[in-house]
Amino acid sequence: MNRTEDRPLTVVDEHAHAWSPASARARFRDGLAGPTAGVAAGHTQVNLISVPADWAYDTLLFCQRNPKACPVLDVTDAGDVTTALADGADLRTDLPRYRVWQDGELVDEPTDVRAYWRDDLVSFLIGCSFTFEWALAGAGVPIRHIQQGRNVPMYVTSRRCRPAGRLRGPLVVSMRPVPPEHLSAALRESSLLPAVHGSPVHCGPASALGIEDLGRPDFGDPVDAEPDDIPVFWACGVTPQAAVMASRPPFALTHAPGQMFLTDARDDQYRVA
Amino acid sequence: MNRTEDRPLTVVDEHAHAWSPASARARFRDGLAGPTAGVAAGHTQVNLISVPADWAYDTLLFCQRNPKACPVLDVTDAGDVTTALADGADLRTDLPRYRVWQDGELVDEPTDVRAYWRDDLVSFLIGCSFTFEWALAGAGVPIRHIQQGRNVPMYVTSRRCRPAGRLRGPLVVSMRPVPPEHLSAALRESSLLPAVHGSPVHCGPASALGIEDLGRPDFGDPVDAEPDDIPVFWACGVTPQAAVMASRPPFALTHAPGQMFLTDARDDQYRVA
Repeated sequence: MNRTEDRPLTVVDEHAHAWSPASARARFRDGLAGPTAGVAAGHTQVNLISVPADWAYDTLLFCQRNPKACPVLDVTDAGDVTTALADGADLRTDLPRYRVWQDGELVDEPTDVRAYWRDDLVSFLIGCSFTFEWALAGAGVPIRHIQQGRNVPMYVTSRRCRPAGRLRGPLVVSMRPVPPEHLSAALRESSLLPAVHGSPVHCGPASALGIEDLGRPDFGDPVDAEPDDIPVFWACGVTPQAAVMASRPPFALTHAPGQMFLTDARDDQYRVA
Repeated sequence: MNRTEDRPLTVVDEHAHAWSPASARARFRDGLAGPTAGVAAGHTQVNLISVPADWAYDTLLFCQRNPKACPVLDVTDAGDVTTALADGADLRTDLPRYRVWQDGELVDEPTDVRAYWRDDLVSFLIGCSFTFEWALAGAGVPIRHIQQGRNVPMYVTSRRCRPAGRLRGPLVVSMRPVPPEHLSAALRESSLLPAVHGSPVHCGPASALGIEDLGRPDFGDPVDAEPDDIPVFWACGVTPQAAVMASRPPFALTHAPGQMFLTDARDDQYRVA
């Protein structure tokens, strides 16, 4: 679902990993777009979903009831374009690329949503698996899709999220093939980051989640696994977008897949121990 | 703030620690009341706060913005008296004792709130420090107030919670004196339970939290410390009650202090690693 013309920012600029979050946001404000994996390394990237105030309670409750998929790191007041997580940021301009949704349909993918902004929008900033990938890599776990220069594969599962008001939808997961000797570290490291999806929802055969073919992800790219690798599935921050598509609120804004909001928070501050 | 006539249930019945959660709830439904510390050991006890639907978003947002003080384990739909955390339970009858609040004032402390129930009430079940005390005790940390047969001391601090809509109030903390040689275990064990307050908010001099005299807690009982003990402060589930008192919603129900709701969940299921 990535716009293929947007190249990964770490490919566009080999120094992107060393940008400060504020300088990354300034570049995005000036129109730069592209997948943000690896940008401003060590700083927390988050999913964005903005809904009309009338839908905010259902959204917040949906997140509370599905915390592994939708770990909320901040919620703005209605109409507020700032967040406690990023000093001086403007949520309407400071993401690389957005998606605009009307009645559950994707209608635009601009790099700036000032023209779409409404004073009743409440924005949810939701934890992202980039944070636990940093922890896994730090513990020596090979991250296959990064080694292969691809986006992580994501799958719509047969598990239903616990609904909240008008919001309902399937659990979406991301999958990383993990060598057996690294499985313990992968479980431990992600478990210690409950604010960014936490421990996996499933390890082993994909059929348990109703996934028919790991080679055909619903979002992102397929990844090549080694023969002994165990597929490990984590709840994915695309889940609230899937709920928007399924539940059709009259209006919503989100980030474009893989083009996240860069906060000033550091990944390690979400580690509980 | 405990009703002094209510004796601890583990004193009333020496077998109370071995009750099942369902049998404990049945006893409370029949009118038994008293502090629940140690009852149905190993099962998760939670704080209750029920507010009119009009106040539910502010309450949920207050909890999201103050997650260490207000870790939400379940939220009911408006008017629903059941919860996913306790099979067959009725939230109107199955707590030992309740508090009824009107315009921020305490107006009654009944053992049954069917007469006060409203079809627009949304109930929040919030994690409780009893869960991490179990983990601390399991790691060999002496729990002074339990050894001394007292309720944990709680203090209103000078720290303000991050407000949400009409809800605002001070951070309330509980304090446990910890011997220096057990400090590491106390920090580690509570950190691994982020759904029940997680790591401490402060260790050391109480003045940093604006607490003038540890011997005069705002709720609960003073506890005797050994000379080398370090006071350790955790965010406390009384915080949302303090917000209710400060913010004066027209109506609210809560549990009576120390007289918690017994769920079927097990404490160890909230441990992240």
